[in-house]
Amino acid sequence: MLLGTQRINEAGHLCVGGCDCVDLAERFGTPLYVIDEALLRENCRTYKRAFGERLDSVEICYAGKALLCTAICRIMEQENLGLDVASAGELYTALKAAFPPSRIKLHGNFKSDLEIEMALDAGVGRLVIDSLSEIGRVNETAGRLGKRADVLIRVTPGIRVHTHHYVATGHVDSKFGLSLASSMAEEAVAQAMAAPNLVLQGFHCHIGSQIFGLESFARAAELMTSFMADMHRKHGLVSHELDMGGGLGIAYQDEDAPPTIKELSNVICSTLVKCLADHDLPMPKLILEPGRSIVGTPGLTLYRVGPVKEIPGVRTYVTVDGGLSDNPRPALYDAQYEATVANKAAQARSTVVRVAGKHCETDTLIPEIALQPVVEGDILAIFCTGAYNYAMASNYNRFPRPAMVLVHDGQAEVIVERESLEDLVRQDRIPPRLAK
Amino acid sequence: MLLGTQRINEAGHLCVGGCDCVDLAERFGTPLYVIDEALLRENCRTYKRAFGERLDSVEICYAGKALLCTAICRIMEQENLGLDVASAGELYTALKAAFPPSRIKLHGNFKSDLEIEMALDAGVGRLVIDSLSEIGRVNETAGRLGKRADVLIRVTPGIRVHTHHYVATGHVDSKFGLSLASSMAEEAVAQAMAAPNLVLQGFHCHIGSQIFGLESFARAAELMTSFMADMHRKHGLVSHELDMGGGLGIAYQDEDAPPTIKELSNVICSTLVKCLADHDLPMPKLILEPGRSIVGTPGLTLYRVGPVKEIPGVRTYVTVDGGLSDNPRPALYDAQYEATVANKAAQARSTVVRVAGKHCETDTLIPEIALQPVVEGDILAIFCTGAYNYAMASNYNRFPRPAMVLVHDGQAEVIVERESLEDLVRQDRIPPRLAK
Repeated sequence: MLLGTQRINEAGHLCVGGCDCVDLAERFGTPLYVIDEALLRENCRTYKRAFGERLDSVEICYAGKALLCTAICRIMEQENLGLDVASAGELYTALKAAFPPSRIKLHGNFKSDLEIEMALDAGVGRLVIDSLSEIGRVNETAGRLGKRADVLIRVTPGIRVHTHHYVATGHVDSKFGLSLASSMAEEAVAQAMAAPNLVLQGFHCHIGSQIFGLESFARAAELMTSFMADMHRKHGLVSHELDMGGGLGIAYQDEDAPPTIKELSNVICSTLVKCLADHDLPMPKLILEPGRSIVGTPGLTLYRVGPVKEIPGVRTYVTVDGGLSDNPRPALYDAQYEATVANKAAQARSTVVRVAGKHCETDTLIPEIALQPVVEGDILAIFCTGAYNYAMASNYNRFPRPAMVLVHDGQAEVIVERESLEDLVRQDRIPPRLAK
Repeated sequence: MLLGTQRINEAGHLCVGGCDCVDLAERFGTPLYVIDEALLRENCRTYKRAFGERLDSVEICYAGKALLCTAICRIMEQENLGLDVASAGELYTALKAAFPPSRIKLHGNFKSDLEIEMALDAGVGRLVIDSLSEIGRVNETAGRLGKRADVLIRVTPGIRVHTHHYVATGHVDSKFGLSLASSMAEEAVAQAMAAPNLVLQGFHCHIGSQIFGLESFARAAELMTSFMADMHRKHGLVSHELDMGGGLGIAYQDEDAPPTIKELSNVICSTLVKCLADHDLPMPKLILEPGRSIVGTPGLTLYRVGPVKEIPGVRTYVTVDGGLSDNPRPALYDAQYEATVANKAAQARSTVVRVAGKHCETDTLIPEIALQPVVEGDILAIFCTGAYNYAMASNYNRFPRPAMVLVHDGQAEVIVERESLEDLVRQDRIPPRLAK
């Protein structure tokens, strides 16, 4: 597996963005998140091109939950993408990076009053309404601030997709959105249209994450257009925007074969064109919200290898200096990853091992993988860690969180500084009566 | 479920440590971790008493991985417990809290050179050797610093316990320790005894976490004493210390019936006394390393309830203003929790709901629970969140991590300050060429 700008250099080392991974580990320490800027930008452009050549009005909004820091916001801004945020913290990060508020959407199944006010105050482009109770709260806050809130309504189309149940979000039994099956989605339309400070611009759906089957997207498009037609007929609502969410899967392993972005575009666009024509509706602006499929493949994590423990007749454990704290996905979702020994990338894979982290539990990163002959001190690179790794990182066992570097044309720049030991106790307080 | 100092007051509110939980939520915000100091200290004392009345020489070492901050270290110091650390960060926290280094043990399946040096430099009481490669590294570092390192060897007894496979650590197929079944444990003994700068004080084992079956502890004690006898016979080694690890389960739900600390003591102590007599060996100092069973029950988390979404014919979702980021255990281990509506604690539980967090995935905290009639704005208390909640907390979706307060005799003191939005971007860097 070599992705984007990844190469193997004369020394037999893995390189990315023109940087030798062994040098990166030496210079910035391990564990280290590395982001391939060229591939990241290429993924953004592929989305824009694939949808832009099919439809006149398209907006690609990067889903910040996958990986957000100020430098990533800057790149998304330069690539002319929109940005999805789902919390005050994500919004704060975007604003800190001078991301244009009008290109930001605020999501979330439970937006606090603070979040709603912060978004309206900043002039965020769209709020995506997720519940009936939110309609009143957004309307009230907008009124108080003397603003009009442009909103989309998140609809639960009732689609069960093939993915991990933690990240399936479009079925009826979901905390998200307002379901088509019940009258909730329609009730939300009526309430939003009646709310004096809301402007209902259209609808949103998101069927899940890491999805390989395009038929689910086609089905969602059918259901959404049918609902738009229904709301037009019953309430006279013209939907100016349709947000089909994100969810396209990526190949974490060589044998994974997700659809391409182009194939996703073909399915969604052709279904929409057909269905809208059937319903005699104009084409709304199409919005997409990819996260993982933009930022997943450009990321890799470098670890220093620790003790290699061969348990006779059982297996060999290769330990690394990170684990659950920097990548909880194997434990959370049974996620599978590919890896290589970065300082031996040109060698044959002659040994089958388990890769484990250094936390106080089993902490398996890769249950079984063929690797080059690996010894203590080697550098292990795990691929495709751009999405939901740093974003979900913890300080479990009080591990400082790793640094993240952006690599590009032989340059490496820190975009997230490594935490120090002092950072770990910054929030700790000892009440005077307990002090020594 | 009412634990420790938890009561229901005249207002019908849940109280803990003499503090009304509704007031705590108001004063400190939500989500909020609350620690019942009296119950925490009581758990420490119960361990000391239960083992101290059976054996002359016992050390109870709190396993810091469950929950560590400087104030917790201070309480453990005052309660005369030892402290287990498993990383530079945990060690740094303990030293920052002026915890006596001689009462600290350094664990970990991959101790970095920095961690080994930091521990020896600080005068940490014991290093627990986890691999053959570590013996050489510790010996070399100790020599360089002109120190002698007191060590235990972590032995994998080969016991499969009934618990989540992520936290089963004593079976042969484990990254931890040196297995009895192979010759690795004995090889480690020979190497450690031959290392000029190591003093081998004895052995350590840890069979797993959240264990309900005491027979596993008895079996571990049998295997460890038999190994001690073997090493005495073959190598003339007198084991001064035997560390039986931690792992006692707690009741997360009313129907859970873990053994008591007293029952654990009876089983371990009587097995040891018998086995050591059989082998004609003197009683070593017994060390225990409880984490969850000390700090689990004294913790609870307070959340503000958000939209309550009734999906007709399906179920009702009660959303709260935290989730996966402050408590990843339901997603990681299918952990089950009890809860109550803190401002309606005296009312009948008349409604069955699912409790979900506010993250961008299903984020189920409690799949199904009977609660009091619950509406937006209520305060939900989830019980037994003291262990592996704050310790594993992340900033997923850029949520600031919650504050933690210690409650005691009607007083509430902040021991971990809530993160601010500014804290979320503190490590972020924008390379100049990307700046706006």
